[in-house]
Formats: sequence, C-alpha cells, structure tokens
Amino acid sequence: MTAKINYKLVVKTLGILLLLEGFFMLACLPFSIYYQKPTLNQVMLFTNGHDFWPLLISGLIAIFIGALVYFTFKDISSRAGKREGFIIVSFSWVIISIFGALPFYFGDDFTNYTDAFFETMSGFTTTGASIFSDIEAIPHGILFWRALTHWIGGMGIIVFTLAILPIFGIGGISLFAAEVPGPTPDKLHPKITSTAKLLWGIYVLLTFIETIFLMLGGMDLFDGLSHAFATMATGGFSTKNTSAAEFSPYIQYVITIFMVLAGTNFTLHYLALNGKLKDVFKNEEYRWYMGVIIGATVIISVYLTFVSGMHWEKAFRDSAFQIASIITTTGFVSADYLQWPVSMWMILFFLMFVGGSAGSTGGGMKVMRILLIVKNSFLELKRLIHPNAIIPLRFNKRSVDQITTYNILSFFVIYLFTFFFGTFFMSSIGMDFDTSVGATIACLGNIGPGIGNVGPVDNYAAIPIVGKWFLSFLMMLGRLELFTVLILFSPSFWKG
Amino acid sequence: MTAKINYKLVVKTLGILLLLEGFFMLACLPFSIYYQKPTLNQVMLFTNGHDFWPLLISGLIAIFIGALVYFTFKDISSRAGKREGFIIVSFSWVIISIFGALPFYFGDDFTNYTDAFFETMSGFTTTGASIFSDIEAIPHGILFWRALTHWIGGMGIIVFTLAILPIFGIGGISLFAAEVPGPTPDKLHPKITSTAKLLWGIYVLLTFIETIFLMLGGMDLFDGLSHAFATMATGGFSTKNTSAAEFSPYIQYVITIFMVLAGTNFTLHYLALNGKLKDVFKNEEYRWYMGVIIGATVIISVYLTFVSGMHWEKAFRDSAFQIASIITTTGFVSADYLQWPVSMWMILFFLMFVGGSAGSTGGGMKVMRILLIVKNSFLELKRLIHPNAIIPLRFNKRSVDQITTYNILSFFVIYLFTFFFGTFFMSSIGMDFDTSVGATIACLGNIGPGIGNVGPVDNYAAIPIVGKWFLSFLMMLGRLELFTVLILFSPSFWKG
Repeated sequence: MTAKINYKLVVKTLGILLLLEGFFMLACLPFSIYYQKPTLNQVMLFTNGHDFWPLLISGLIAIFIGALVYFTFKDISSRAGKREGFIIVSFSWVIISIFGALPFYFGDDFTNYTDAFFETMSGFTTTGASIFSDIEAIPHGILFWRALTHWIGGMGIIVFTLAILPIFGIGGISLFAAEVPGPTPDKLHPKITSTAKLLWGIYVLLTFIETIFLMLGGMDLFDGLSHAFATMATGGFSTKNTSAAEFSPYIQYVITIFMVLAGTNFTLHYLALNGKLKDVFKNEEYRWYMGVIIGATVIISVYLTFVSGMHWEKAFRDSAFQIASIITTTGFVSADYLQWPVSMWMILFFLMFVGGSAGSTGGGMKVMRILLIVKNSFLELKRLIHPNAIIPLRFNKRSVDQITTYNILSFFVIYLFTFFFGTFFMSSIGMDFDTSVGATIACLGNIGPGIGNVGPVDNYAAIPIVGKWFLSFLMMLGRLELFTVLILFSPSFWKG
Repeated sequence: MTAKINYKLVVKTLGILLLLEGFFMLACLPFSIYYQKPTLNQVMLFTNGHDFWPLLISGLIAIFIGALVYFTFKDISSRAGKREGFIIVSFSWVIISIFGALPFYFGDDFTNYTDAFFETMSGFTTTGASIFSDIEAIPHGILFWRALTHWIGGMGIIVFTLAILPIFGIGGISLFAAEVPGPTPDKLHPKITSTAKLLWGIYVLLTFIETIFLMLGGMDLFDGLSHAFATMATGGFSTKNTSAAEFSPYIQYVITIFMVLAGTNFTLHYLALNGKLKDVFKNEEYRWYMGVIIGATVIISVYLTFVSGMHWEKAFRDSAFQIASIITTTGFVSADYLQWPVSMWMILFFLMFVGGSAGSTGGGMKVMRILLIVKNSFLELKRLIHPNAIIPLRFNKRSVDQITTYNILSFFVIYLFTFFFGTFFMSSIGMDFDTSVGATIACLGNIGPGIGNVGPVDNYAAIPIVGKWFLSFLMMLGRLELFTVLILFSPSFWKG
C-alpha cells in the first residue's frame, strides 16, 4: 500500500463502465420507438415521445466520453491494489449516476438536475426511492432506463459483495464469501471475473424466469421485464403509480417469492442449482432469514385478520408481500402499511435495519451481521458469568475470530451513527420527526419507501434540494457497506 | 463460582436495606407535621394531611420486616462472591421500590398500586418520570419522601458504579474506576466501604451546598432540600407543577450548574477537592462532557436567539438548562423543548442516549462509552487501510485492551436492542410512534420526560398499566447498566 495510486487504471476502468452504460441507454430505444405516441406529423416522430432523443443523445455522450477515456489510457499498467479497488467502486456509482441522470434531465419529466440525479442514484443503488408522482405519464423508453438502472446496479452489487468485498475485508464479509466458488484469490482479476460470471448467470436466469411468470399473469414484456429487473435487484421502481397494488394476487405472490429469492445469498442459489439443497437449509443465515420472514408474516397476518378484521387471504398476502419487500429492501408496495396499527408497521420499521442476506442484492445491515451481533450479546452475558472461560462466537458451526466480530460490531455502530446523523440532518432542513427517521433509514438501507411523509404511498418530490443530495449520498454509503465510501475521506488513505 | 449461592447473606443484606428505608420514611414525618393543613378537629390532626399515617405505617412495616429478617439471619457466613453481588444489587432496587411505594399507596393520591410502584421505582432509579399531574396538591410529607427516593437512589448508584461494578467487570467500567481512591480490591468488603464513605461524603457535601444556594434564591428548606436531592441524584422530581420553570433565573442557573456537577464522575470531584484541578481538566471524558454541553448550548441558544427571535439571555438559559438536564438525565424542565424546531429538540433526543459521565449519578450510556465507540470506529477505518498495523484504542493516554472495547461495543448493542424492543412493546400496547420512542428512552436512560405524549409538560399517567410495569423494568435495567439485571435471566448464572 505504499506505492502510488494507479490513477490511470482507475480512470480507464470508469471509462469502460461509461461506455457500457451508453450501450445500455441505447438498448432502451426500441421501447421508446414501439410505445411512441401517435403523431400528426412525421417530422415529430421521434420528438413526441419525449424520450427518444434524450436517450439517444445521452447514450452517445456516454459512449463518446467512455471511448475517449478508454483509448487515451489504452496501454497502461494494470497494476491494481486495494486502494485502486476502493476508488473504482465508489466512483463507479458516482460516474454512472452523473451520466445516467442525463436521459431524465434531457427529457421533459424533470425540471432540474438534482431530481434526475436522485432518481438515477436511487436506481443504481437499488433503492427505489422516487421523485415521480405520476409514473404512468412518463414515456416508456425513460421508464425502461429507470428499471435498467436497478438491474445494472444489482449486477454491480453482486460482483461488489461477492468478489470485491472479500478482498477488501470489510464488515465480516469473509464469513459468507468463503463459500464463493471459483479459484483462490491469489490473483485479483481472474477471481473477480470468474465469480462475477457465475453469479451474473444466476442473476440473469432468475430475472428471465420471473419475467416469464409475470407475463403468464398477464403482464406485457415491458412491464414484465421492468418488474423483474426491480425485483431481482431488490430495487422497487414500478411502472405503475400504485406500485404492485395495481396487479392481481397471482402477480403479487410471484413478486413476493422472487423478492425473497433476491434477498438470499447468491452463493446459496449456486448450491441449490448444483442439487445441494441440504447445504442451503443448513446455512444459518438462510434459516434465520426465512424464519424472520415467516414469523413476521404469521404475526402481522394473524393480527390483520383477527384484530383488524381483514379477509385472511388478503391479510396473508399483504403482510407477506410487505415483509418480503421491506426485509429484502426492495420497496415495492401492495398495501399502505402506515394504515396498519403502529406496532405492526413498527415490525416493518425494524426490518428496514435488518435488510437482506449477505451476498444478496438486498441492502440494510444484513441478516448475518444482526444475527452475529445478537448471538455475541448473549455470549457476553455468559462471559460475564465465566470470565476465565473462552467462549467463541460460532456461525455455521465454525468459530468466528475476534477481529471479524470486532469488525461487525464497528459496522453496526457506524451504521447507527450514520442513521442518527442522517435523521438530525433531515430534521435540520425542516422535515418532521417521522419523515426524518423514515427518509434516512429508507435511503441508507436502500429500501425506498419509509415512514412519515416518505411512506409507501408518498414520494421524495417534496424533500428540499440539499436533502435530495444528502439522501443520494446516504444511498451510496449504505449500498457500498459504509467503509468503502468512508475510507475515501480518511487522509491516511491517500497518503498510502 | 461453583459454590452454592449464599442466599442467607442476600436476604440479610436486603433486610438491612429495608430497615434503613423505614427510618428514611420516618424522617419525612417532620415535614408532614409542619405542613399539616389547618384542622377543625384535633382528632383529625394527623389524618387531614393525608400523609402522616401512610408514612408512619409504611415506615414501621419496613422497619419491622427489616429487623425481623436481620435478626433471623444474624450469625451467618459473610462469604460473598460476584453472584451474591449481582443478586443483591438487582433485588435491592426491587425490594425498596415495593416497600417504598407503600406511603403513596396508603395515601389518597394514587388509586392503584401500579402507579405507586412506578413513581417509586422512578424515584429510586433517579429517573424522575411521574404519574402526578397536580404535584402541588400532594401533601408535603409524601413529596419529601418522593424527593428522598431520588437521593437514596443516587447514593446507591454511587456505591454501585464506583465500588461494586469494577468488581463485576461490566461494560468497560474498569476504565474510570481505576482512578477510584481507596485500598486495592483484594477484599470485597473494605474496598466497598471505604470508597462508598468517601464518595458519599462528596455527595452529601454537594447536596448541602446546593440547598444553601437555592435557599439564598428564596426557596424554603423544604423546596431547597427537595430540589437539591433531585439535582444531585440526577432525578428530576420537582415539588412544582411546572418544574423548574416556576423559579427565578438565578435558581435555574444554580440548578444548571449543579446538574452539570452531578453528571460529572465523582472521582473527579475527589481530585478537585484535593486541589488536583489540572488532573480534572486533563480527563478525556470530562473534556468531552463539557465540550458537548457547551457546544450544544451555543448551537441551540444561537438558533433560538437569531432564528426564533427569543431574548438572548432566555435563549441561553433555556438551552443550557435543558441540555444539562437531558445529558445528565436529570429531567428537570424549565422550557417546553418540544416547542423548539424539530432539529433543535432532536439534539436533546440524541443526548438522551449519551447520558452523564461514567461514575456520576447520571444515567444513559455514559459519555465515556460513546466516546470510546466513536474513537474506535475511526480507528476501524485506519485498520482497514493498514490491516497489518496494530492500532490501539487510547483513553486518557492509556491504551484500552481489546476485551474492554469488545465489552463496551456489546453494551452499546444490547442497549440499542433494548431500546428497539421497548419501543416496539410500547407501540404494541397502543402508544403512537413518538410516544413509544420517547417513553422508552426516557425510562431506559433514567431521564424522565421524553418526547411525544410523555414530553416535558406531560406525565406518564395515561400509559396503560402493563406499560407502567414495563417502563419500571426498563428504568431498573438502564440504571443497573443492563448486564447486572440481564445476567439474572441466564440459567447458567444460577447453575454456577
């Protein structure tokens, strides 16, 4: 870590990402053309949809700049260490959000760049917090780009958490990454590439299967793909104003199941596909993840059925959907949970902190971390009774070393301090208590809808500009497991 | 720890405490007699005040049972280990609250035992959360007993945190207790006794000085003592309906200063009294404690002066008073902070979690723990950059060993989980979000007034019965640093 940072490689890598982003933008054009509004005048053909030119121009800008950067830094040293990795990861999300906001900005739907950037960062971080109030009025090309930001973000997160984070050694991530298939990490590049390819394959496969199931329920290709993108990335952008409440019970059940799958460690999908189902069910994090989902669903659906007098099937479906949506940090909505009794939506509020499984596309603190922290707290009582005994923390039947536990505890502390600071910041720009709390955890945890004025049926349009930039930063912070971003603010990082 | 628990000693110790409590009750009788309401009938002399007989009878009951227990277990083995210590500490607060509630219960002011118990536990834990809505209608004897519960509780806390906790080894307490004067802890009993005597001397001295200052400001002996008791214990019960808002600016300043003193580590008072002021100002926790108080006062008073247009002196006095009251967890009120802008009272809300200095009578998590946790988080970033370097956490220029840091982190985690669970519990019995959050932290942190419907101008009368018992438990949990109480729920504690 004493060598100079290879900035050229950093810039080149970002250039390649920009190039790819440009092509993804162009991939939205077919939807723009197909869904263009009827025109009176052929000259107006591609202007009337409000999305063809914005997407084309943005795509070309990204491709042009990306290519320029790539060819400028063509033959350079590929020497890369941890520091280059940290810089590349954080700046990836910044750069693709800056350029990814252009189609929104060039279109007619946003009046300022802040809103466009917020929506894009919300997409790439798979948060799903939206500024749009009338989503159905947005042209299809733009909506598809919006859905794609989720899907691209989800791809990024998979490679980030399962291939890059283990190398960084952040927040006890080594515990689940140990099971990642692929060659040993003696060389950075091949390891990342092979792991990424394998897991992306699973990601694409699951997206494909969900799209099929959604289309069997009556969705067209556009809605099917958009919702599958949002589900598998645990994003939550819908193409409908009422989110998933728009759709049939069948579709709601399909989305529920796939949200749960998206919040599962992707290495478990790999094991399952290899027939090792027994290993999946033996996984401690998975058992707790499923246990919490099932337990919370039973509690809330029983409450809604017997106390609130809802029909049992709707009570079950609403609670299962909302719980899956919140714990996986997807953020789709099929019922306004703030209308439930306080104690019931407070269960959801707590689940916002938990988040999905480690190694999934879900955000939050991750089930594994919470699980280890709770276990460790119980052990601490035991240690107090037997101060001389060595009582190790165990996970998946292996003992967790102290440095890792320490690291996880620190992560928890920093996460909560960030939450407290965020809440204070939001209140200082005039938000009320509930909204400050809700917006902060919903963005930091990459969920989308929160509580207060950013609840399930509201959006983020009314947040002041400075608040939108701040929340965008929180999304990135939460998405990249805090440390990855915070480390860049440490002077000793740059000194090396 | 394999020996059988010496239950006889436990019971005998509790008996002695009960005996002492009885005498304290009788000590309230002079105030009952002095302030008795004018009577038409001499026979009614001692019944018209509603407090003479309740206090006398309760006192005699406590003395009778206490003496009975004491003499029953007169000549027993004084062999005591940690386990006996844990049991004695937790049950002390329970037993003296059960009997301490009797004067309230026998009087005319409470209709049920739950309210009486809540008020008493609130007193002994120096919380100051009250059920009374019309305090000035309560007879003086009862009010004096209410103030005394604070003062007795404060005495208990001083000996608990500075003499007993270091022996238990809970939550990094060794860091500040290392400086406690007195013989080395090779023998349990002499250590506790000598430390306690010394610190109680300081406690009594400060109470005496504050009473004088308050009486110089026009208070009578009754009000002076009552408020000095509540201040030095960081309790917060007032004898006035409007709490400290009733009094002159002079008195408010006096109370502010003594609240700050009460929230200071009592071993620093010892150093100061020995002329070692330099050592006091070198103490890291003290610097941060004062820094936070001064910093927060500047921010809020500037805001209230320039943004809310308040007169600068009142803005300064109100903010200094409320900040000192909240961070020391006293809970006196001289202004309704919920009327301030959200971001301003949110500063107070965060200070509720911080609490006073370790080794003071203040509650909360303690400045020292928060300080170490924040420092450690910054170090964790450094450790990430230099994974092979050994970067120790330092406090007062000495390095803190990993086990202690670990212990503090675990304390933080359990504290927050208790807070989350408490909030959920309160919401599940029908409280709204703000009230659930406010009542939980106000009781767990031993503050008194919170936010929502238990804010500075409200009281706890409207909380359902089960909620009052639950909050009473939280008060004890917070007051006894969590572990002391929680450990009793561990089966392996009893197995030995």
